[in-house]
Amino acid sequence: MFSLGVSDHIMVAHSFADPFFGPAQRLHGATYGVELTLRTSTLGPHHVVMDIGALRDILRGVLATLDYSNLDEHAAFPGRTSTTERLAEFLAKSVAQELVKLPADTAPPPPATLSVLLRESPVAWASYELPLPAVGAAR
Amino acid sequence: MFSLGVSDHIMVAHSFADPFFGPAQRLHGATYGVELTLRTSTLGPHHVVMDIGALRDILRGVLATLDYSNLDEHAAFPGRTSTTERLAEFLAKSVAQELVKLPADTAPPPPATLSVLLRESPVAWASYELPLPAVGAAR
Amino acid sequence: MFSLGVSDHIMVAHSFADPFFGPAQRLHGATYGVELTLRTSTLGPHHVVMDIGALRDILRGVLATLDYSNLDEHAAFPGRTSTTERLAEFLAKSVAQELVKLPADTAPPPPATLSVLLRESPVAWASYELPLPAVGAAR
Amino acid sequence: MFSLGVSDHIMVAHSFADPFFGPAQRLHGATYGVELTLRTSTLGPHHVVMDIGALRDILRGVLATLDYSNLDEHAAFPGRTSTTERLAEFLAKSVAQELVKLPADTAPPPPATLSVLLRESPVAWASYELPLPAVGAAR
Amino acid sequence: MFSLGVSDHIMVAHSFADPFFGPAQRLHGATYGVELTLRTSTLGPHHVVMDIGALRDILRGVLATLDYSNLDEHAAFPGRTSTTERLAEFLAKSVAQELVKLPADTAPPPPATLSVLLRESPVAWASYELPLPAVGAAR
Amino acid sequence: MFSLGVSDHIMVAHSFADPFFGPAQRLHGATYGVELTLRTSTLGPHHVVMDIGALRDILRGVLATLDYSNLDEHAAFPGRTSTTERLAEFLAKSVAQELVKLPADTAPPPPATLSVLLRESPVAWASYELPLPAVGAAR
Repeated sequence: MFSLGVSDHIMVAHSFADPFFGPAQRLHGATYGVELTLRTSTLGPHHVVMDIGALRDILRGVLATLDYSNLDEHAAFPGRTSTTERLAEFLAKSVAQELVKLPADTAPPPPATLSVLLRESPVAWASYELPLPAVGAAR
Repeated sequence: MFSLGVSDHIMVAHSFADPFFGPAQRLHGATYGVELTLRTSTLGPHHVVMDIGALRDILRGVLATLDYSNLDEHAAFPGRTSTTERLAEFLAKSVAQELVKLPADTAPPPPATLSVLLRESPVAWASYELPLPAVGAAR
Repeated sequence: MFSLGVSDHIMVAHSFADPFFGPAQRLHGATYGVELTLRTSTLGPHHVVMDIGALRDILRGVLATLDYSNLDEHAAFPGRTSTTERLAEFLAKSVAQELVKLPADTAPPPPATLSVLLRESPVAWASYELPLPAVGAAR
Repeated sequence: MFSLGVSDHIMVAHSFADPFFGPAQRLHGATYGVELTLRTSTLGPHHVVMDIGALRDILRGVLATLDYSNLDEHAAFPGRTSTTERLAEFLAKSVAQELVKLPADTAPPPPATLSVLLRESPVAWASYELPLPAVGAAR
Repeated sequence: MFSLGVSDHIMVAHSFADPFFGPAQRLHGATYGVELTLRTSTLGPHHVVMDIGALRDILRGVLATLDYSNLDEHAAFPGRTSTTERLAEFLAKSVAQELVKLPADTAPPPPATLSVLLRESPVAWASYELPLPAVGAAR
Repeated sequence: MFSLGVSDHIMVAHSFADPFFGPAQRLHGATYGVELTLRTSTLGPHHVVMDIGALRDILRGVLATLDYSNLDEHAAFPGRTSTTERLAEFLAKSVAQELVKLPADTAPPPPATLSVLLRESPVAWASYELPLPAVGAAR
C-alpha cells in the first residue's frame, strides 16, 4: 500500500449558529493547515501515486475558493455549520471531483482513497476520508 | 470516515524492572506528547465527531491522574512495566471509560474507534487503538 | 543570559482597511500560535526566570480578551490595523503590564526583556520585543 | 491494535530520467525524514512491540547503505526511478528483511505490518506499507 | 524591536572537496528549510515590517536560481564549498540585494537586519545575519 | 554573523524541594529536547562554524552523563534544584569546557557564543547563553 501526501493552508473567518459551540458562536477565525493524502495499492507508469506538483496545484485551486473568506457566507455550510469535520469533508470531495477529471495515465491508479486532515490549532485537528471515484466518473 | 484529534502532554518518572531495557532500568523520566484520535463513520447532530472542548477536558482529567508522578508506583503497571505501549493502552481504555458515560447526543456516533499515540522523544512514539464500546456500556 | 518561554494560541477574525493588503482586505481569520519569551541576566531565588505556570496563566489571561473574537472591533487596532506585528506589540505590552504587578520575589529579575512571537501560518510569523519595565513601575 | 514508531533521516542526491518530472530531471537532492512504524495486535513478553533501540539500530543500518550517496547509481532504482514512493518501498522491504532475522522473543509478535513514511520537504511525503513476513521466513 | 519571518525550501545536490567533511565528500543532497527574518525598530506606513506576500515572492525568486540544481556547479561556491553556512550567507546577501531595490514605502524601515536560517535535517541548522543596506544603496 | 545549531534529547527524572514548585515537588520526569547553537563572526578554514558531526558528538558525550538518570542525585543540582534554566546552564558550560579543548583549526573562530535551549514540553522551554572562552583557556 502506497500513500502520497501534500500540505498547504488557508486563513478564514467563521462562526457557529448552534449554542452547542459556546464562545465559538462569536465570529472568529482559523488558519487551517491542510494535509491531503492519497492511498493506492499500486503505482502508475511513472513510479508515483501521482505527480506531486499537479496534486499541490489541484489542492491550491480548491483552497483558493475559500482562502481569505468568511465561511459563514459559503453555500457549502448552510446555517453556519462550517465545523472542521464538515470543512474537511467539503475539501476532500472537492479535490476528488478534480482528480477524476485527470487522464488515466496521470491520475492515481484505482482503487484509491483520499483524505483531508485539517489542523486548526496546535492541539486540535479533524479529517475526512473517502474512496476516490474511478477516473472518468465525472463525465 | 471522519476523525477528530486533540493533544496534551504529561511529565512522569519511571523505570523498568526487566533487564531487557538496559539503561532504562535506571529511574528516568519522560514528557509524553499525547495525541487522542476518534474515528466515526458519521457526524452527530452538531456536525462534529464530538465537542473538541469536552474531549480535551476528558483527556486532561485522565492525564491528571498521572501527571507529575512516578509510574513505578501506579497500580496499572505492576512490576515496573510502564512501557510506552502499555501507557498508551491504559490511557486509551481510561478515556473510553469516560466517553461511554456521555449522553448519546454529545458522544461520538457509534460505531467509533479511539486511539492514543504517545510521543516520548523526537525519534520514538507508540500507540494503542480500540473500538469504542457503545454508549451506555458503562452502566 | 537566561531565557524562559511558553506558548499558547488564539483563533480570531479580522480584515484590513488598507488596499495594500490585497485579498486580506476581505474578512478572514487566523490561528495565531503565540510564543512568549522572557530574557534575564540572572535567576531569582527559586532558580528560575519565573514560574512557568504563573507565566502561562498571565499569557492565557491576556489572550482570553481576544480569543474567539473579531479584531476589527477591538479598540487596540483602530481602522482595521491588526497586522501580525501590531498584534504582537499589543500582546507583549499587555503581558508586560501584568508582569510588573508581580511581587519582586516572583517576577523576572531585572533587567529583563519580553518578546511575543506570533505564527500566523506554517510559512509566516512576526514578533515584538520590549524591555520589561522595572517591578513596581505600574504603581 | 498497537504501534511503535521511530524516526531518522538521510541526505541523498538523485535525478529522474522520465520527462514527466520536469525540473526534477536535473540532478538535485533531498533530506528524507524517515518514519518507520510497526503495527501488531499484541505485545511481546517485554510489554513492547519490540525494543526501540534495536529498531532504531536496524533502521540506521539500512539507511547507512544510502546516506550521503547518489541514488542514480543505486541498483534498486534502475533508469533513475528513485521516486519517494519507490524509496519508501525499498526501505520498508529492506527493514522487513532484517526484522525477520530476529529471534522470536525480540521480534514484533505476528501478524505485524511495517510502514515507512518519507518526508521530502515541509509540504510533501510518501509512504509504503507491507505485512511483515513471519519470523523465520528469511531462512 | 519588530521582526517578520517567512519560510520556503529548496532541494539541491552537492558535495565537498575538503577531506574534512568525511562521507559528505561524496555527492549527496539536501532539502533545506529556509527561514528568512527581517528585524526593524519601527513599522512602515502600513503597520508592517513589509508585505509578507512580497517578501515571500522575493525569497522564492532567489531560491528559484538554486532549486533542483547541483551546487557543485554554482559560481558562488568555488571548489565545492557550499556548506550550510556559506549557502545561508549567499541567500541572505542575494535577498538583501533585492530588498534594497524596493521603493522606500514598501521596504523595511531602516535600520534593518536580515537573517537566513537553513534547516538541513531534523538535527542540524545554520544561519547568517547581516545589516540591511539602506534603501537605494543598490543604485 | 553566523550560527550553527544541532539538536539531541535526554530522558531524566527529577523533583524540586522548593514548595514554590507545587505538584512538581513530586518525583516526575521529562524528555528535554536539546538545541545547541554556536554563533561566530567569521568562518574557519573549512567554511564552517565547526564540524556538525564533531559538535553532535560533543553534545552527545555531555548528555550521556545525564541521560536515563535521576537529576535529584546529581552533584550539579544540590538540594533538588534542577530547573530547566539550571540544566541549560549546566549543559552549556559543560559543552563549552569540551569546545575549548579543540585544536584551533577545528574550534569555532573566536569570539564565539554558545547557547543551549531546552524544550521540556510542547508549551515550555528555557535557555542559557554564554560567551565561549578562547581556545586554549582550558589549559
